[in-house]
Amino acid sequence: MDIKDKRIAVLSPVAWRTPPRAYGAWETVASNITEGLVARGWKNVTLFATKDSQTKAKLVGFVERGYEEDKNQIPLVSTVLHIGKVMERAGEFDLIHSNFDYIPLTYLPLIKTPMLTTIHGFSDPDILRVYRDHKDAYYVSISDSDRDAELPYVATVYNGIDLSNITFRDKPGDKLVFLGRIHRDKGTHLAIETAKKCGMDLLIAGIIQDQQYFDDFVKPGIDGNKIQYIGPVNPVQRDALLKEAYAVIHLNTIPERFGLVMAESMAAGVPVIAMDLGSCREVIADKQTGYLVKDTDQAAEAVGKIEKIDRRKCRRHVEANFTIDKMVEGYEKVYAEIFRREALKKQTTA
Amino acid sequence: MDIKDKRIAVLSPVAWRTPPRAYGAWETVASNITEGLVARGWKNVTLFATKDSQTKAKLVGFVERGYEEDKNQIPLVSTVLHIGKVMERAGEFDLIHSNFDYIPLTYLPLIKTPMLTTIHGFSDPDILRVYRDHKDAYYVSISDSDRDAELPYVATVYNGIDLSNITFRDKPGDKLVFLGRIHRDKGTHLAIETAKKCGMDLLIAGIIQDQQYFDDFVKPGIDGNKIQYIGPVNPVQRDALLKEAYAVIHLNTIPERFGLVMAESMAAGVPVIAMDLGSCREVIADKQTGYLVKDTDQAAEAVGKIEKIDRRKCRRHVEANFTIDKMVEGYEKVYAEIFRREALKKQTTA
Repeated sequence: MDIKDKRIAVLSPVAWRTPPRAYGAWETVASNITEGLVARGWKNVTLFATKDSQTKAKLVGFVERGYEEDKNQIPLVSTVLHIGKVMERAGEFDLIHSNFDYIPLTYLPLIKTPMLTTIHGFSDPDILRVYRDHKDAYYVSISDSDRDAELPYVATVYNGIDLSNITFRDKPGDKLVFLGRIHRDKGTHLAIETAKKCGMDLLIAGIIQDQQYFDDFVKPGIDGNKIQYIGPVNPVQRDALLKEAYAVIHLNTIPERFGLVMAESMAAGVPVIAMDLGSCREVIADKQTGYLVKDTDQAAEAVGKIEKIDRRKCRRHVEANFTIDKMVEGYEKVYAEIFRREALKKQTTA
Repeated sequence: MDIKDKRIAVLSPVAWRTPPRAYGAWETVASNITEGLVARGWKNVTLFATKDSQTKAKLVGFVERGYEEDKNQIPLVSTVLHIGKVMERAGEFDLIHSNFDYIPLTYLPLIKTPMLTTIHGFSDPDILRVYRDHKDAYYVSISDSDRDAELPYVATVYNGIDLSNITFRDKPGDKLVFLGRIHRDKGTHLAIETAKKCGMDLLIAGIIQDQQYFDDFVKPGIDGNKIQYIGPVNPVQRDALLKEAYAVIHLNTIPERFGLVMAESMAAGVPVIAMDLGSCREVIADKQTGYLVKDTDQAAEAVGKIEKIDRRKCRRHVEANFTIDKMVEGYEKVYAEIFRREALKKQTTA
């Protein structure tokens, strides 16, 4: 049997439509995996998502709309209805690929179909109680650094981005850019500090996730002239923004799990100056597509060395590692490994 | 096989210890069912609850302490771990009796053991999506009035109370009493209105669940003399309070689901004047153990007729209908009916 005939159920969250209209990171990845599998010739892919979702695979839904888009729903009701229904139909699939966090794992002992869980991040250390209780499950990490030491992983599969939305430009802009959620974790204040140290302009874009942090640490630095906040950006606006970029400043204060923004920047040809924490050194090729630094002094120094970076190499680095196609290729290997192990199990018990 | 040899799993929530140290209505009922079954000679009862729970049955737990008593836990993590573990062991039981709301139902299609769910109340209309999706499940309502028209119920089983905590007194006190959560739903303000209309003293006891409501509608009525608020009461304090009671005023503004306070009052020999909404007319025998009314005028009028009520009859009404033993007797009939239907199903499919 051709592996691409295997029946795959991709389980997406139901917070948003899949793919989301705007925000919705996990729904985005679930959509990219589903559409990527179809594009690479997988014939029996079913996406479990909200009923208003869009896919070239078969769509199965039990929840009309995402609970973030319909405040009459109790999120937990939609969540367990959705997950329960997938599990009820587990026997129709050779593999369930869950992108919906820890709750589906609690159904796993009751079904016979193997389940792969992509761990998109540990939202709280307490959720590890569920993961560690299911050490016989199949896990994928989204970077080597975002791993729990006690869990068994089949592999790391980096997130892939849609390159068709991002224009490569060989010619650098003349501003520094901060792109991402405005939150202490993402170090917006450190981007401001860096810009001031090297006397360059800074454009800040992204949703304000922590208003207190914005008011206390970001707003005081904004002068509306050299340091500007331009609000959230959609993909088209992001593309225009990256045209202005001399470099992207990404001085996260906690370990990065993957770092979609870094991949998007490099895809546009923009080098990234990133804090050497978490997955940053996996996404950036140090001194090749950007610089890994430890503080804002080093970041300011790195700005002075940006011209040594070949912007075409940035794009190629993304093409080679962080496209949807590369991601799906990674998952294909994981699926094959799971089928191999499952076949072995059957031999052993037979 | 004696039905009392059947293996029963009682599923309690994990918000609090079972039985709870103070609050915890569902944990209280789950405990009463478990201990009641043991007292009536059931030999294979297992209580699934927090590890620090107390029972004469077999205790199985996966969560150290109630998540309301240990704020390091994410409630949902403990909830799904607990439920998942029970389901994983479903094969060890002849019946699972769930007192833990709607989430366990989503595991039901994956197990072979029948499950009975006591619906302790619909916290939000949206949770009906899950109940209605499992119309093949077994349901018990806690009053005939607290039913959803679309759901099939095996029976109504009224909650039972522990009579050993409540002293019967034939001699009436000289005050009106309000007992229960201070909340608009419970009509604390209407109790004040009634007391003023008939010029009697009123003692108000219970936790303040809605501070705004208390400040706006209750506090202005309290004069510290004729109308007093004495705070929450434990069982011993409640017993002392009921000694003072000429009647209990229970003018709920939304349909009552069951009404534990009414049963407790009557057990002490205290007649109840209650709003004719929801289960009140099931718990109170109108004109026998209290009066059902439609407004505070009727309530004030009913106060004038309290001496017509035989207080011994109030106690006997509770003894006949609302004890733990009566409740467990009710559940025994339900269990027998479930086993009968399950046996029939097996015959049909065999």
